[in-house]
Amino acid sequence: MIKKLLEISFKKGEMHSPLYLQLESEIIQLICNGQLKPGQMLPSSRELAQSLQLNRKTVVATYEELNLQGWVESRPRSGIYVSSKLPDTSANIKKTKNKNTARPLHPGFPLKYHSASLQNDAIDRSRKSFDESPVKYQIDDGFPDPRLAPMEALAREYRRFGKGRFSNKYLMYGPEHGSLRLRMELVSFLNRTRGMQVSEKEILITKGTQMALYLSSQLLVQPGDTVMVPEPGYIDANRTFAFAGANLIYIPVDKDGMDIDVIEKHCKKKVPKIIYVIPHHHRPTTVTLNAERRMRLLNLADKYHFALIEDDYDFDYHYASTPLFPLASIDTGGHIIYVGSFCKSIAPGIRIGFMVAPQTVIDRAAALRRLIDRQGEQLIEEALAELFHTGDIIRHIKKSYKTYLERLDTTCDLLQKNLGQFLTFDRPQGGLAIWARYKGEISARKVAQEALQTGLKISDGTNYFFHHKTNQPDNFVRIGYCSLNPQEMESAIGLWKQALTRST
Amino acid sequence: MIKKLLEISFKKGEMHSPLYLQLESEIIQLICNGQLKPGQMLPSSRELAQSLQLNRKTVVATYEELNLQGWVESRPRSGIYVSSKLPDTSANIKKTKNKNTARPLHPGFPLKYHSASLQNDAIDRSRKSFDESPVKYQIDDGFPDPRLAPMEALAREYRRFGKGRFSNKYLMYGPEHGSLRLRMELVSFLNRTRGMQVSEKEILITKGTQMALYLSSQLLVQPGDTVMVPEPGYIDANRTFAFAGANLIYIPVDKDGMDIDVIEKHCKKKVPKIIYVIPHHHRPTTVTLNAERRMRLLNLADKYHFALIEDDYDFDYHYASTPLFPLASIDTGGHIIYVGSFCKSIAPGIRIGFMVAPQTVIDRAAALRRLIDRQGEQLIEEALAELFHTGDIIRHIKKSYKTYLERLDTTCDLLQKNLGQFLTFDRPQGGLAIWARYKGEISARKVAQEALQTGLKISDGTNYFFHHKTNQPDNFVRIGYCSLNPQEMESAIGLWKQALTRST
Repeated sequence: MIKKLLEISFKKGEMHSPLYLQLESEIIQLICNGQLKPGQMLPSSRELAQSLQLNRKTVVATYEELNLQGWVESRPRSGIYVSSKLPDTSANIKKTKNKNTARPLHPGFPLKYHSASLQNDAIDRSRKSFDESPVKYQIDDGFPDPRLAPMEALAREYRRFGKGRFSNKYLMYGPEHGSLRLRMELVSFLNRTRGMQVSEKEILITKGTQMALYLSSQLLVQPGDTVMVPEPGYIDANRTFAFAGANLIYIPVDKDGMDIDVIEKHCKKKVPKIIYVIPHHHRPTTVTLNAERRMRLLNLADKYHFALIEDDYDFDYHYASTPLFPLASIDTGGHIIYVGSFCKSIAPGIRIGFMVAPQTVIDRAAALRRLIDRQGEQLIEEALAELFHTGDIIRHIKKSYKTYLERLDTTCDLLQKNLGQFLTFDRPQGGLAIWARYKGEISARKVAQEALQTGLKISDGTNYFFHHKTNQPDNFVRIGYCSLNPQEMESAIGLWKQALTRST
Repeated sequence: MIKKLLEISFKKGEMHSPLYLQLESEIIQLICNGQLKPGQMLPSSRELAQSLQLNRKTVVATYEELNLQGWVESRPRSGIYVSSKLPDTSANIKKTKNKNTARPLHPGFPLKYHSASLQNDAIDRSRKSFDESPVKYQIDDGFPDPRLAPMEALAREYRRFGKGRFSNKYLMYGPEHGSLRLRMELVSFLNRTRGMQVSEKEILITKGTQMALYLSSQLLVQPGDTVMVPEPGYIDANRTFAFAGANLIYIPVDKDGMDIDVIEKHCKKKVPKIIYVIPHHHRPTTVTLNAERRMRLLNLADKYHFALIEDDYDFDYHYASTPLFPLASIDTGGHIIYVGSFCKSIAPGIRIGFMVAPQTVIDRAAALRRLIDRQGEQLIEEALAELFHTGDIIRHIKKSYKTYLERLDTTCDLLQKNLGQFLTFDRPQGGLAIWARYKGEISARKVAQEALQTGLKISDGTNYFFHHKTNQPDNFVRIGYCSLNPQEMESAIGLWKQALTRST
């Protein structure tokens, strides 16, 4: 009977693991499932080897292991028995698991399905976008061109790590705040370019802007607190605040940024914990918060004591004039958490961002960060610090700035010439994307579906508006103009035109 | 008066940023602080240049920028004025900030000081350990030797990234679940070595074990839920559960692991959400959960439907016999979240860990991960996948296994011979550390202080026991024996002996 059980469940070679390990695993499972009872005799190694067509040495090795580990016991001049010290679970015998199906979640598993912020659609979306068959062109949400990334300089730094014993310390645990050297370089860069006056104690290196948003929301928001977010806005920020338990209040955005009158009206009713603002190249509409509203927003922060999270995710690309200084460079009240990243300046896959705030906040965030992932990737942080020091980063930003400005001109021309009858847009003053609106009754969702048929992936107009669950506007698209070169963009817009012609 | 203000606050060269940006920043701050009122006339560019000893062109450029950005307005044939569209904040004039002091946190800033898990001592501790003057030797908590890490192989992979256009896709956004290729390699490795039977849909690549613990706790624990943890135990795990709002129940650990009788008694009173278990080389005491207790624990999970988080942080180093299979390879009920990492097998600074669980849990964890840091570092994930594929990782593990086994022997001999009068220990069956107990009244804290004087850094006996806030045992030390070679260990133990002799 035992031999029969083992013959059924043990199929040589199926698991690509050493035979004695497979056999060991099978016997342990039969014991735990209650199919082999404590005190029950096992077949002799000779018998078992014969019936399973294994070398006898394999079975002997398995029995020895099982004995050492306490699963079986060897009784002298008698044989091998399931250890009588084990509990008897034969009352609830379970069927041997089918190897070829995934292990199901136990229905009683205490998974907490809280908050809409972890809806499966985020995963479905991500699965789709990465598993789908490749498209010819993608007009993205406003990402840099990874072909311009300074990979050779980065590889040069890694080569140094490979050689030097000096890199050993970067392979060990390091500070939660991030590489001290990178913090110094970043502080000097921020102070130099953005009129800020911060020290390395007021900065934390994060994994992109996203981690800075996550840390801030967890440190500030109690369930039921109010957080004001722009509408249209940025879905991952909204989800992050919602995950922390926030009630979101949506603040309309017009051509000069968030509407401060609406903010003030809401503050009088209930003071928010956080107001989330993207004052530069608002995502998605690319508008800039004007000077008057900046002053009023800072005054409200002084009056009501909410925290301002200022997301400056693509400061480096501004074309019309020098960029407006961040609110963080003006605020003297200590209300601001300033977050940004180099994902947009270098490549999204290089996950280096930062969070600038008074030291109390930074130290708290570092303590939380320790619980999340202990620390950042020291090798990449040290490599980037070196690239700041050598000037490679600055040169890269200047070079890509020039390229992107040309691409913006090209794209605006192409859009005007080829798609002028279908959509309208304003040339953005900065950022990596154009915000456009389809004319008339054109549905972004339908166009995106048609476009996919032609081999073009493009925004379907979702994930910009959140205030109303239904009746969300369906006629806006964000057009990233940086990741395609002029020839590619011309072809992409050609496909887009085909899709538009077909769907109207 | 205005010139005076500017002269006071504007000090050339102090900020290391271009002069016109500095001047711009100063004027904006004076406007926002209410020291310059809307509609107020500014000095002419000639006057201002003269009084600040700047080139007139600098001032003209500044005024142009301020005009473009809406801070000032130029009235024809009259001069430059603070924009009359700005709000008047002169009623609450603030003093100009002192440039040389850090920005303080506003007293009304809504920082949430919740839960002891973000106590500042974590930060203080970390600050100390990284800022301190270097010591001659450190006997650590059980870390690998970074000098053995396969850095050349890693650098080789980065060189390929530097060359190839093929790496562009790894510079963009990728799947939250982690590199598909690395997931396939890991799944095959886990199935091959640990008797597991999982697919790539049941695994998430994390940043070390820590992120797997964080994600699990956030997905499962509601404030007030019970989580059972071993005592003595692992501080960062305890803190992570506490941060999620858990009430911790401390389960005693003896030579065979956690006491299942105590667990069962507590389960009858209140079912926990999670039981956290380190069945292999328990941290800190290095004991292994025996077969009988494994079966009983799985049976309790079946009966009470709690989740078992199985932390197998250093599976690869086991000396006495082949390692016991993880609970995850036996459980057929779908109760287990199996977490582990390669930080201990390769280097702590290479932050690659994993979480294995039923797909529903994994997808939920990936959705949360998206909010935390969007994704892992694709370059390092792809590089590691390649090193698994080429066998470099396996060769590295085999090589270091051999080295560490030798170092374990050496260290046990040295401890016995030199410190036998001061402490007792059992040779561990695996893991990267020895658990020792000082004899008599010797205080680990005092020894650690003395040792630091001799240039040796060693455990001060804290952070092992948590159940009682006071009267925690003070006479245990964990001795990492892997990161020092035999000569270094001999010297380190020599210093330790000096410290012991002095403090007893």
